[in-house]
Amino acid sequence: MKIEKILPEIIQKNDKKILLIVIDGVGGLPHPETGKTELETANIPTLDEFAKRGSCGLIVPVFSGITPGSGPGHIALFGYDPVEVQIGRGVLECLGIGMELGKEDIAIRGNFATIDDNGVVTDRRAGRIPTEENERLVARLSEEIKEIKGVKFEIKTVKEHRCAIILRGKNLSPRVSENDPQKENLPQKKIEPLSKEAEFTAELLNEFIERVNQILKKANSKANTLLLRGISKVPDIPTFEEKYRLKSACIATYPMYKGISKLVGMDIIETGEEIEDEFETLKKIYNDYDFFFLHIKKTDSFGEDGNFYGKVKKLEELDKKIWQIKNLKFGAIAITGDHSTPSVLKSHSWHPVPLILLSENTIPDDVEKFTERECAKGILGRLYSQEVMYLLLACSLKLKKFGA
Amino acid sequence: MKIEKILPEIIQKNDKKILLIVIDGVGGLPHPETGKTELETANIPTLDEFAKRGSCGLIVPVFSGITPGSGPGHIALFGYDPVEVQIGRGVLECLGIGMELGKEDIAIRGNFATIDDNGVVTDRRAGRIPTEENERLVARLSEEIKEIKGVKFEIKTVKEHRCAIILRGKNLSPRVSENDPQKENLPQKKIEPLSKEAEFTAELLNEFIERVNQILKKANSKANTLLLRGISKVPDIPTFEEKYRLKSACIATYPMYKGISKLVGMDIIETGEEIEDEFETLKKIYNDYDFFFLHIKKTDSFGEDGNFYGKVKKLEELDKKIWQIKNLKFGAIAITGDHSTPSVLKSHSWHPVPLILLSENTIPDDVEKFTERECAKGILGRLYSQEVMYLLLACSLKLKKFGA
Repeated sequence: MKIEKILPEIIQKNDKKILLIVIDGVGGLPHPETGKTELETANIPTLDEFAKRGSCGLIVPVFSGITPGSGPGHIALFGYDPVEVQIGRGVLECLGIGMELGKEDIAIRGNFATIDDNGVVTDRRAGRIPTEENERLVARLSEEIKEIKGVKFEIKTVKEHRCAIILRGKNLSPRVSENDPQKENLPQKKIEPLSKEAEFTAELLNEFIERVNQILKKANSKANTLLLRGISKVPDIPTFEEKYRLKSACIATYPMYKGISKLVGMDIIETGEEIEDEFETLKKIYNDYDFFFLHIKKTDSFGEDGNFYGKVKKLEELDKKIWQIKNLKFGAIAITGDHSTPSVLKSHSWHPVPLILLSENTIPDDVEKFTERECAKGILGRLYSQEVMYLLLACSLKLKKFGA
Repeated sequence: MKIEKILPEIIQKNDKKILLIVIDGVGGLPHPETGKTELETANIPTLDEFAKRGSCGLIVPVFSGITPGSGPGHIALFGYDPVEVQIGRGVLECLGIGMELGKEDIAIRGNFATIDDNGVVTDRRAGRIPTEENERLVARLSEEIKEIKGVKFEIKTVKEHRCAIILRGKNLSPRVSENDPQKENLPQKKIEPLSKEAEFTAELLNEFIERVNQILKKANSKANTLLLRGISKVPDIPTFEEKYRLKSACIATYPMYKGISKLVGMDIIETGEEIEDEFETLKKIYNDYDFFFLHIKKTDSFGEDGNFYGKVKKLEELDKKIWQIKNLKFGAIAITGDHSTPSVLKSHSWHPVPLILLSENTIPDDVEKFTERECAKGILGRLYSQEVMYLLLACSLKLKKFGA
């Protein structure tokens, strides 16, 4: 985005703090019986109070009609162009479980799978083997495959049938095909280079799979191969410190969000599993950072499960905890989501997401409730997720005048 | 901007006239005691009537969160991309006091300053010397320095410690550093070339400063040197005539706005200091132009001074005069601002600016008042300043169909 070019000349440090609360998948659609969305159904007096006190709007994560994954949803909220900055799934998986990823490393998402004697994939998840079995297999593979052709391999368990793999070495390229046939009862594929400079990497990965298959043969498991997916490198982007001169912290419970945050240079703060824990952590580290990203996961999970009232309850639980931010001083606060996850669709969706912007330096509007339909009437109108970061910086007086 | 590419094929001349009234810094923020902005506080029945009759919206000058200077604020309203078309500060200063600037000339903003015997800047504004003293010094410098190495120097007083300098000659480049240390008690800097082709210009300016220092030594003034800033050339952009086929006029009282208007090829019309004078001028030249830019300055000045009720009064004064435009026929009128200048911030700000679009060919909405919160509900929604010019052209039926 063009505006990023002028950022270095206008950004300035000050002691104001910024809080971005992302309620994952917060936006919804009306319940067919009541005609009300999850937000309209929930009893959320504190969020409504914030909507009343702040400026409201609806944010479009990527573009009208585009349903974002968690990657683009968050990258946009962090102020990067979500189409230009794409994060590979392998990268997200590795970062999410705390693996260190260098700029030249290749990150891969691995699925333990079952193939028959003819190399046909009969179960792409090897019956979702238990995590303990995964750990046993990963230990064995790690023991026996440390390096191929001078390239180091690191393998880690994620959970169930999923693992993460990092390749470290020279002349590596992510421009190779995957060996996952995508459907069962099709043969496992060969990994092919998608460009000249990726020939070495393809060769390497095919040899890796051959050795994995040999080792797993003797491992007494339903899992007897690996499907390699999301083969990628970290995108080459400036960190929050470089881009915004912000010392930033991530408070999240799920690996993926920690992974994305790490990518933009945030410190990942240890916290508990509950919403309450996250706000406790925020209080604890308040003095140490300029920018806080606090991520609420469960709203999205219930939406994905099609559990309308589960999502409503989670919103109500959040509402009972979020008042605590009133006790901390921020230059600007945004309360929003990375995308909508309507329970009736059981998936992420493209619908614009309600936004509350709280700051001394913004105009409160007539919006009285934190809902999709109310926020649509807010003074901020309809804007892109990527703009939120600029508004937070501006309201915190961190952007100098552009031009004379 | 991409849309500019199709303009030549769709623009057409007709006899409809366009009026753009820019109320500088019109947008504001709520007064802490009343919760009302300057516009919400002011008694402005005529502007409210226009809001009622027209289509309303909020315009974003550059991008969310970006606070524009007067340059980008106006360049955007004139329909140019404010990030692509950046006007140097030197250029604005020279044009603003009516100096003629050619495409190859170098324009510089000069500050009379005080240095000690060691070349350390002890006062960057030489105690803000009176304008008369500035004029005396400029006369002396102009007398003694007419040309260096075949390049002509023109120096003019702006006011107080500020002057403007133009270099006219061959092989000049604005890619040189400034000699202003930015802070006091630091040595005056040498001017350095920032690229190979600027070596001659740097050499030239260093010699100029040496001669200035020698001359001012004998001038019996606190001012004994010049700090050179905003060294720039005019941007290479099409004029209003070329871009829109509009014969255009600027009615403004302050140098900077005349300067920007000249840059896009407007005729600068002599007018008086008062709002009343500007509307009189508009009536007088009504028959001679297609496009009129009428600039109201004082709203911004009061905002910058933090004088909330001064700004309110100026809005009320404008309201008493602006009814006169009803007696003239226009294809389209826009009433808006180049940016917000909230009195509570005492500076320009990033907040979107209320816009009224008046034309037979637009849909009146429910907006009843010319305020930030009311215009946010208007049918035009939230748009970029750069779009206003396209709406004015369209409502005046000057844009043909695009594509078959």
